[in-house]
Amino acid sequence: MGPVRAGDGPVKSGAGELEGVLEAARRIAVPTEYEERRLRTVAERVLRAVEEAFRGVEGHVRTTLEGSAAKGTWIRSRPEVDVFVHFSPGVGRELLEKMVVERGSRALEDIGASWRLRYADHPYVEGFLGDVTVNVVGCYATEPGKWLSPVDRTPYHTRYVLSRLDDRLRTEIRLAKAFMRGIGVYGAELRISGFSGYLTELLVLRFNGFLELLRDGSGWRPGKAIDMTGTFTEEELRALFPNSPLIVTDPVDRNRNVASAVSLTRFSEFVLASRLFLSSPSLSFFDPRPPSRGDVRPLLGCLMAVRLRDLPSLPADTLWGEVLKFCRSVERRLQKEGFVVRRWAAESNGDEVLLLFDIESLELPPLELRVGPPVWLRNAEDFVGEHLRDQLTVAGPWVSGERLYVLKRRALRSARDLLLRWIERGEVSVPKDVAPSIRSAEVFEVTEERLRELRESGYSAFLDAFIDGRPPFLR
Amino acid sequence: MGPVRAGDGPVKSGAGELEGVLEAARRIAVPTEYEERRLRTVAERVLRAVEEAFRGVEGHVRTTLEGSAAKGTWIRSRPEVDVFVHFSPGVGRELLEKMVVERGSRALEDIGASWRLRYADHPYVEGFLGDVTVNVVGCYATEPGKWLSPVDRTPYHTRYVLSRLDDRLRTEIRLAKAFMRGIGVYGAELRISGFSGYLTELLVLRFNGFLELLRDGSGWRPGKAIDMTGTFTEEELRALFPNSPLIVTDPVDRNRNVASAVSLTRFSEFVLASRLFLSSPSLSFFDPRPPSRGDVRPLLGCLMAVRLRDLPSLPADTLWGEVLKFCRSVERRLQKEGFVVRRWAAESNGDEVLLLFDIESLELPPLELRVGPPVWLRNAEDFVGEHLRDQLTVAGPWVSGERLYVLKRRALRSARDLLLRWIERGEVSVPKDVAPSIRSAEVFEVTEERLRELRESGYSAFLDAFIDGRPPFLR
Repeated sequence: MGPVRAGDGPVKSGAGELEGVLEAARRIAVPTEYEERRLRTVAERVLRAVEEAFRGVEGHVRTTLEGSAAKGTWIRSRPEVDVFVHFSPGVGRELLEKMVVERGSRALEDIGASWRLRYADHPYVEGFLGDVTVNVVGCYATEPGKWLSPVDRTPYHTRYVLSRLDDRLRTEIRLAKAFMRGIGVYGAELRISGFSGYLTELLVLRFNGFLELLRDGSGWRPGKAIDMTGTFTEEELRALFPNSPLIVTDPVDRNRNVASAVSLTRFSEFVLASRLFLSSPSLSFFDPRPPSRGDVRPLLGCLMAVRLRDLPSLPADTLWGEVLKFCRSVERRLQKEGFVVRRWAAESNGDEVLLLFDIESLELPPLELRVGPPVWLRNAEDFVGEHLRDQLTVAGPWVSGERLYVLKRRALRSARDLLLRWIERGEVSVPKDVAPSIRSAEVFEVTEERLRELRESGYSAFLDAFIDGRPPFLR
Repeated sequence: MGPVRAGDGPVKSGAGELEGVLEAARRIAVPTEYEERRLRTVAERVLRAVEEAFRGVEGHVRTTLEGSAAKGTWIRSRPEVDVFVHFSPGVGRELLEKMVVERGSRALEDIGASWRLRYADHPYVEGFLGDVTVNVVGCYATEPGKWLSPVDRTPYHTRYVLSRLDDRLRTEIRLAKAFMRGIGVYGAELRISGFSGYLTELLVLRFNGFLELLRDGSGWRPGKAIDMTGTFTEEELRALFPNSPLIVTDPVDRNRNVASAVSLTRFSEFVLASRLFLSSPSLSFFDPRPPSRGDVRPLLGCLMAVRLRDLPSLPADTLWGEVLKFCRSVERRLQKEGFVVRRWAAESNGDEVLLLFDIESLELPPLELRVGPPVWLRNAEDFVGEHLRDQLTVAGPWVSGERLYVLKRRALRSARDLLLRWIERGEVSVPKDVAPSIRSAEVFEVTEERLRELRESGYSAFLDAFIDGRPPFLR
């Protein structure tokens, strides 16, 4: 079997082919001159409006353009403008938040943008002007190391990257971001747990190019450590960030791992995609096919769904963290009971979340082998006493090796019934904020009819991706 | 839950109850005076006939009575007479065997006994006179340590035990043997892998009584070591016999473990039975109930049978060794494929052997999760290439953690079909002697109809015991 290609069509090997793919990828990644001009216009307009809105406010230091728009590293069709309002450290956090929300939203209204509140570490205003997303974020004008809020680093990030950028690297960064997006690992939010824009920029700078990053990345193993500050050895970094598959120190804060959000799965997907792209370049890494509408029939009898409704309004990462915690707890409890959980995934649809568990069988076998203690432990007699005349005992207890065993009839066998009982009895983790949604969760087996219903509720793409199973770059 | 009792009825606690049980057990274990006299009469008759048959034979040294009849340690209803014909070391092994077979059988014929040939380490003659079993065995008259055949030790064993015996200990040994028999751990042959008569005698001698043996035995853990020779520490013995759950040095050969035949399961059954008997004495440990005719229905769909016919004529331990080897290989292969093998057992019925495997489900689920390599291994690409467009792939490959996974349709799912294929392809151990029987084995799922058929073929007690699952002392 030769190298794997993601697409079906015949692919020629060699440098010419790679260059052809990269040329096409650049057209996907790099905005047109018209788009660039449009973004700059929008950025200047927003910047002026926000400056206007905060003029004369006590403690307001300056207003700046940050992020990918400031650096010229945004990717085509993803225009985004980040405007930062800097306050002096003396301003209270609550006051800062209040001012950003009130005056930021007013500034956006003044230029005709719609807007909504969003929450990260603290609230900010997200606006929409045409196809451009605009964020108005408050931060403190602090010195490095004296951060009062996580976003205080951002202006320094912008300056660091800008100081190392040229036009070639700008395009390389855009290629890298488009690649990360295409293979499904782009984004530091908990739902994705992948590579942030800033991390991608740092990696391209470190390896001085997109292909160079892929060549290095294709050889990475979990625990890969890259120091951007000339301070630490790889071993020291691994000791500092022991559970991170990827460690990249922040040039503006050496004690911070820019890659802390990257999960082992996203890390591994990037490594695999790098290898596959280099051995068989294809545009599909930048422009993935949608998942094929796979045949669900082989999976019928294997899929359990949990629908959480009436979820609270919370920062996405907070909510998502609780949902994931619940999912992992369900997985562990199912495994403990003898179910084989092959995979699971979650998707949010407005204020509702759908969890899918792919389980070898949604019903446990009618009989269960219980492993007892070694005969020489004091509780061996208890085990015998408990099971010898029990109604559910089918055979035994018997001795095999040094242990006792007994064969029991199972009282409850269905994954659904068991999960509902575990929730009721507190045998799965029910995190505080989502507890009411979990306690009233709808738990059901995914039949063909249920599948149709879920597709109609907006989960079609999610279901297709789950049934297909392959990451975008393998479709 | 209080201490466990094996019987159902109300059992009073205390010394009086224990004494009552022991009194009844002695009646089971100790032969009547009439039986004792009859055995002595038979022993003398056989001894005289064998002496007569070997009179004047060159190299014949003496003829002696050995074993439990010589020691007076046989248990009621199990009368057995061992006559040993001693040869000088100069006699060739083949000649010795030939003479024992020819003249031993003639001697038995002369006194009107039926007989047949049997094979242990070398062939001997087994005869039947009324209800007494008679063995005529050839051995070499050697000094300790200069053994030419394993049975050369036996006369020394007889002398050792006799020199330490009195009437009280004789009864205690008989109680111990009846207990071992009753709980199903008596017999050193491979099929039982339990406690030999000689081992039981040594243990009673060492602990100076039956109850004292049980009290000590109820605290044993695997690796228990008892030196009868004052030579070794427990640690030294464990180092010498590293895989033996029980080590008892032979007083007539310190480098030999008399308990080498005892399996971990039989060892553990003895420990458990000792504890249960002491906490709740009952005659059922000496006189176990037969297994109840349990309800087989919960096990339908869980039992796979293998019937081996046309087995070769071989010493029982040789044949049994090969059968057990095959069983263990089948168990391992089934487990590797994803079956949950709960237990298995084998029973011989004349020249045919029946194997039973209790498996959680005789059919594997339709889909199989295959775990691939970590993405950073070179063969990750091969795994993707092998499964991406494969007809049997249902979902994936996907990345989870650092590994690849894929969900496949199973081509073969039935335990029976798989076993037949493994036998054909040599994927289970098919030991030489039983290979033809295994290759033509009948493999089938035990349905209610098949069960009836097996009961009619003489496997009723075996099937009841298997379905019930409990060792005799827990029935």
